[in-house]
Amino acid sequence: MADRINRRIVLAARPDGRPKPSDFRLEQVPPPIPADGQVLLEILYLSLDPYMRGRMDDAKSYAPPVALDAVMEGGTVGRVLESRHPAHTPGDLVLSHSGWQEQAVCHGDDLRRLDPAAAPVTTALGVLGMPGFTAYSGLLTIGRPKAGETVVVAAASGPVGATVGQIARIQGARAVGIAGGPEKCALVKDEFGFDAVVDHKAPDFPERLAAACPDGIDVYFENVGGAIWDAVAPLLNTFARIPVCGLIAQYNGIPDRSADRLGRHMWDVLRKSLTVRGFIQREFADQRPAFYEAMAGWLRDGRVKYREDIVNGLENAPEALIGLLEGRNLGKLIVRVAQA
Amino acid sequence: MADRINRRIVLAARPDGRPKPSDFRLEQVPPPIPADGQVLLEILYLSLDPYMRGRMDDAKSYAPPVALDAVMEGGTVGRVLESRHPAHTPGDLVLSHSGWQEQAVCHGDDLRRLDPAAAPVTTALGVLGMPGFTAYSGLLTIGRPKAGETVVVAAASGPVGATVGQIARIQGARAVGIAGGPEKCALVKDEFGFDAVVDHKAPDFPERLAAACPDGIDVYFENVGGAIWDAVAPLLNTFARIPVCGLIAQYNGIPDRSADRLGRHMWDVLRKSLTVRGFIQREFADQRPAFYEAMAGWLRDGRVKYREDIVNGLENAPEALIGLLEGRNLGKLIVRVAQA
Repeated sequence: MADRINRRIVLAARPDGRPKPSDFRLEQVPPPIPADGQVLLEILYLSLDPYMRGRMDDAKSYAPPVALDAVMEGGTVGRVLESRHPAHTPGDLVLSHSGWQEQAVCHGDDLRRLDPAAAPVTTALGVLGMPGFTAYSGLLTIGRPKAGETVVVAAASGPVGATVGQIARIQGARAVGIAGGPEKCALVKDEFGFDAVVDHKAPDFPERLAAACPDGIDVYFENVGGAIWDAVAPLLNTFARIPVCGLIAQYNGIPDRSADRLGRHMWDVLRKSLTVRGFIQREFADQRPAFYEAMAGWLRDGRVKYREDIVNGLENAPEALIGLLEGRNLGKLIVRVAQA
Repeated sequence: MADRINRRIVLAARPDGRPKPSDFRLEQVPPPIPADGQVLLEILYLSLDPYMRGRMDDAKSYAPPVALDAVMEGGTVGRVLESRHPAHTPGDLVLSHSGWQEQAVCHGDDLRRLDPAAAPVTTALGVLGMPGFTAYSGLLTIGRPKAGETVVVAAASGPVGATVGQIARIQGARAVGIAGGPEKCALVKDEFGFDAVVDHKAPDFPERLAAACPDGIDVYFENVGGAIWDAVAPLLNTFARIPVCGLIAQYNGIPDRSADRLGRHMWDVLRKSLTVRGFIQREFADQRPAFYEAMAGWLRDGRVKYREDIVNGLENAPEALIGLLEGRNLGKLIVRVAQA
């Protein structure tokens, strides 16, 4: 039940490059009190995702930044402690966007009820949630892989990449994953069933990627940016599609390069009739019902698998996010805020 | 009638950067002789277009390069001198892709018959031809301007840019042109009726472009590249579309820049959900009948205007192409090879 104290983590300072633990601050405040129409939630799980790094900056982006001294935002699974909304009852498990804290109030209309009998509730933060839907909507709407085509995705052991590759295979395409280190590569190949995986830490990574894509690349699902793009670009086929959902390699700052690559890139766009399309999954919100139905079926049939990396304790969230930005997690990173 | 000599211009050397007159060679050869199914053409008009610079390089592109010592390629309007094809009769005026020469043989199936009563035959090389269709297909299929949106196009006094802006206005969008120098700017505004025009040679060009686009840019039709992109990029709205049909600023070589712009560009693609899409008009070949019908109507109604810049004499084609790559022409550049 509700403690008398709500622990929460706020943004203490805007990071300069890589975030430091001192950019976050753990606070203890009185628990919030629900008003009419609201519910009081005990947060059980907090999702950690790369986009959070962007929210820590003051730069203009697709979403407003987290204010200094405000609670870090994030998707959460919680339990209803107290309800002043007719649709919710104490004990219900719900998805909300309550951020890095142990207790929160939300308007009851903003919650999605979760059925723990249908799927583990943590999947609402991963394969059955925002990362899974990012993979589904971006791959099928922008990437549009056809049977026999080659789909390449980086961060292939992460929740978006793993799902992209598995949906690509369901479409009859060939899935080639890129991941860092032997442990992640084994997960991609053995657990997620990609046709091939390439370790981007290998010194001959570009040659290995070319060997894994003998027919070139028809869809490159871009969620990384940086040096991986340089190896992908020469392999892109005419009419290749590049959904761009993330650029984790540059979230801590765009690396300085001595030579401009944009002119070359635009020339590739022209001579290969490339489609480069940025997107945020909420653009495709009308596809969510179809996604939930399809993904639930694929999970039941074992056609889509997922891996979770669960960290215990809200106080460990800052270090876990810092690690995520450096690729230290293995699978969907989730903080267990309270025992379920 | 046919001379006993065919004059033609071949590629003498692959240019290093900007083409020089010595990269071309004028030759006199015996006139070609049509075989069964072919026709002998007297070329009246030769189209000069920016893409020709790409064909002079040996680099991999969307079309094979012109071989050394081969006739420079190009679209042409000719008159049938001799026909060994049932569909064509001496005296017919036809569109072909016969290149830089005074006489040519073509298979009769590869010709499009032109009706000089319907429109001046030179328009088959411009507004009613490949440049017009590039504007039409790229703007309507990729750019998809909606009423009230802002469409920006560079090289706006050229045949593609001028047509893009005028079709944008027909769709109810606001057309902003970019052109170099007062003469071209006046043409864009006064003759082609753009809502605004900005001179990219002005020292405060980025500020002027921003002032001309108070609601940002929804469609940037990219046919130039280079420094103009740097002024356009900050003004792009979320969900902006960027059809890329040419990069004339980099055809003579990609300028060296000391800083990499690609990371910043991809970040824009992501945070603004941009669509960047390269294309070559032939991808949309099935739209050609609709294009011919629509454009003929717009020309008749005076809703689309065009300007031609006609150079006399095949021997002047090399200098004219060199000038085109530096923006020295005013309107669609055509070489009059013989008097019609």
